[in-house]
Amino acid sequence: MAVNLAIFNDFIPVNGVRIGIASAGIKRAGRKDIVVFEVAESASIAGVFTTNAFCAAPVHISKANLANKPRYLMINTGNANAGTGERGMTDAQAVCQALAEKTGVTAQQILPFSTGVIGEPLPVAKITAVLDDALANLSADNWFAASNGIMTTDTQPKGASRQFQHEGVTYTISGISKGAGMIMPNMATMLGFIATDAAVEQAVLQQICRECADVSFNRITIDGDTSTNDSCMLIATGKAGNAIISQASGSLYEKLKAELKAVFIELAHAIVRDGEGATKFVTIKVEQTASQEEALQVAYTVAHSPLVKTALFASDANWGRILAAVGRAGVKNMVLEAIEIYLDDVCIVEKGGRAASYTEAQGAAVLKNAEFTIRICLGRGNVAETVWTTDLSHDYVTINADYRS
Amino acid sequence: MAVNLAIFNDFIPVNGVRIGIASAGIKRAGRKDIVVFEVAESASIAGVFTTNAFCAAPVHISKANLANKPRYLMINTGNANAGTGERGMTDAQAVCQALAEKTGVTAQQILPFSTGVIGEPLPVAKITAVLDDALANLSADNWFAASNGIMTTDTQPKGASRQFQHEGVTYTISGISKGAGMIMPNMATMLGFIATDAAVEQAVLQQICRECADVSFNRITIDGDTSTNDSCMLIATGKAGNAIISQASGSLYEKLKAELKAVFIELAHAIVRDGEGATKFVTIKVEQTASQEEALQVAYTVAHSPLVKTALFASDANWGRILAAVGRAGVKNMVLEAIEIYLDDVCIVEKGGRAASYTEAQGAAVLKNAEFTIRICLGRGNVAETVWTTDLSHDYVTINADYRS
Repeated sequence: MAVNLAIFNDFIPVNGVRIGIASAGIKRAGRKDIVVFEVAESASIAGVFTTNAFCAAPVHISKANLANKPRYLMINTGNANAGTGERGMTDAQAVCQALAEKTGVTAQQILPFSTGVIGEPLPVAKITAVLDDALANLSADNWFAASNGIMTTDTQPKGASRQFQHEGVTYTISGISKGAGMIMPNMATMLGFIATDAAVEQAVLQQICRECADVSFNRITIDGDTSTNDSCMLIATGKAGNAIISQASGSLYEKLKAELKAVFIELAHAIVRDGEGATKFVTIKVEQTASQEEALQVAYTVAHSPLVKTALFASDANWGRILAAVGRAGVKNMVLEAIEIYLDDVCIVEKGGRAASYTEAQGAAVLKNAEFTIRICLGRGNVAETVWTTDLSHDYVTINADYRS
Repeated sequence: MAVNLAIFNDFIPVNGVRIGIASAGIKRAGRKDIVVFEVAESASIAGVFTTNAFCAAPVHISKANLANKPRYLMINTGNANAGTGERGMTDAQAVCQALAEKTGVTAQQILPFSTGVIGEPLPVAKITAVLDDALANLSADNWFAASNGIMTTDTQPKGASRQFQHEGVTYTISGISKGAGMIMPNMATMLGFIATDAAVEQAVLQQICRECADVSFNRITIDGDTSTNDSCMLIATGKAGNAIISQASGSLYEKLKAELKAVFIELAHAIVRDGEGATKFVTIKVEQTASQEEALQVAYTVAHSPLVKTALFASDANWGRILAAVGRAGVKNMVLEAIEIYLDDVCIVEKGGRAASYTEAQGAAVLKNAEFTIRICLGRGNVAETVWTTDLSHDYVTINADYRS
């Protein structure tokens, strides 16, 4: 089902990260549903989390523990431990405590992550019973297994990996993500774990993580819903041998950030490509706006419009629906006559209506593709923003009417 | 398909309103697609219109002509005359001019309305060719024909009618609406025409129209899209014999407004009941909020959530999705532990999680009904708001992937 998404299995191990996998049978017996990351003592970890007011218990704990030089990340699927009240906190802490005892660190050095059904109590005993299994198979080579282990309704595992050189040193970046539905600005139901062997001070790493997430995971939307559990973590193990990056400048800083951005974007795109029921991968570019805010307002209004999304599913170049969505985005004093809308390079709207040169055949030729860009020029400034989304298909309804998430 | 919506055919004629119907064959030969309202010289007319920045040509003209003591309203279906640039204005004016010449009023006393496909030029000649037909059958008894004549993707005509007494005088109210998809706050693709024989000064009528629309047509949503053409018109013919209502107070004023509100709400509900693909009629009440704004923010976030809507379609009491939608509504400093959520009288969420007393059987018993209320109590104030919406079904996707609207 996923749109142009190859299964990624070329992970380059990141020195300072080992991963262990286990099966707690939370949702299905035998399913690998526990993933443990162990990071070197020299590692810094940064993270961005869901903005949902009701974030899940593990999110509260991971946020708090980020300051404690964490040594382990512990992910379970099949249960989100969200909407679980006080018990949810106690349960998440119990899992952290169990892992801490087995590894000789403090419970405050564990970052817990959960994804899956909301509102069911976390099956603590099932999880703690298999922590030994996970620790027993800790390995630098388990990235692909981890990309599979964090999946929920994803149809494919998602990963990215690359290396770059700087002043004679080779740096590695590897990452995995999961998503599928409920994806939207501010991190929706997604998890991302990205690691590099560069040495970066935690505050600087946090800034890099924020910047990279803002142009990747925070620019994708499938259905406009945001989950209670979204988390994107960036690990810098400090094993590459560079002098620690302690300020947000310098050529290594810029190079590393650019490479990380590329990995974040690749992982974010993979989530959209595997969006629930997706048959199209759609880039929405809004240009010539007076502010970033209005660019994003327009981009998300178009990206969330069910009428636009069903037209895209039908490969119908229904420019009227796109124009109507732009019109209701809430941007003040927009001038209809200044708007231009393109499907890839085909101008479909100009001067307030259908472009004179436009033919339905041109629109159909673009929309028959699995990937294309809707470019909207407002003619009122020079700011631009890009978001990525999918169409709205029958399968989306089927998946979400059948799946208890 | 419509949810508990009987076909309404008990219209009471409104003294001072005559309606003519004709067939211009805009979309389909033989379809009655032209409706003309003629109103008495004594009539006042008020209206509220779409807030879409790119409103259609007829909306611009009707807004402008509202001040000119209009005598005719002229509605065509099959073509929205939206996204048609300058030509759209010229075309709409040409239709007004033609009707003015045939009726002896000025073109500025005509209010034009169009609904249907966006971006196609209005077939002016087809319309003007049948204006004589429409005028020839002007009758006080054509309300039912009119309710059929304004339909687009509606599966049923929509109407409401009632009388009330005040100080020995009988007053009549009749109205029709059309809608179906693309419905959302601020009037989405809907048209509403409501008439009363009361005498009301135009400025007062405008205030009544705004107030009534705000608790009816502006509180319904099917897919969150707003159209370029939405208009709701309120006519007061002045034929009942009352002294003209010239200020926004007094017992007749209050009585009339209350009765009009009931009609507006009935017509708005009919639009939701006939929402595209709707299988459920869902009332969303948000209570105990600190402001109207946050009550509406939460109500619309829940009403627009595709995850909530697909769960409702599946009759799945997925309270986690509702809670997650509340959480991402953007209300600052919400306290999870204070939230309570009810399905009709069944408490499903309390103290941050599933209510202790709740069983899946209770939720299923409510959701098997075609109508129910989701009540969300935020525990932070005493403001409440209500919106009405539908579920998201396979048929919604089918209708909107197939229909070029």
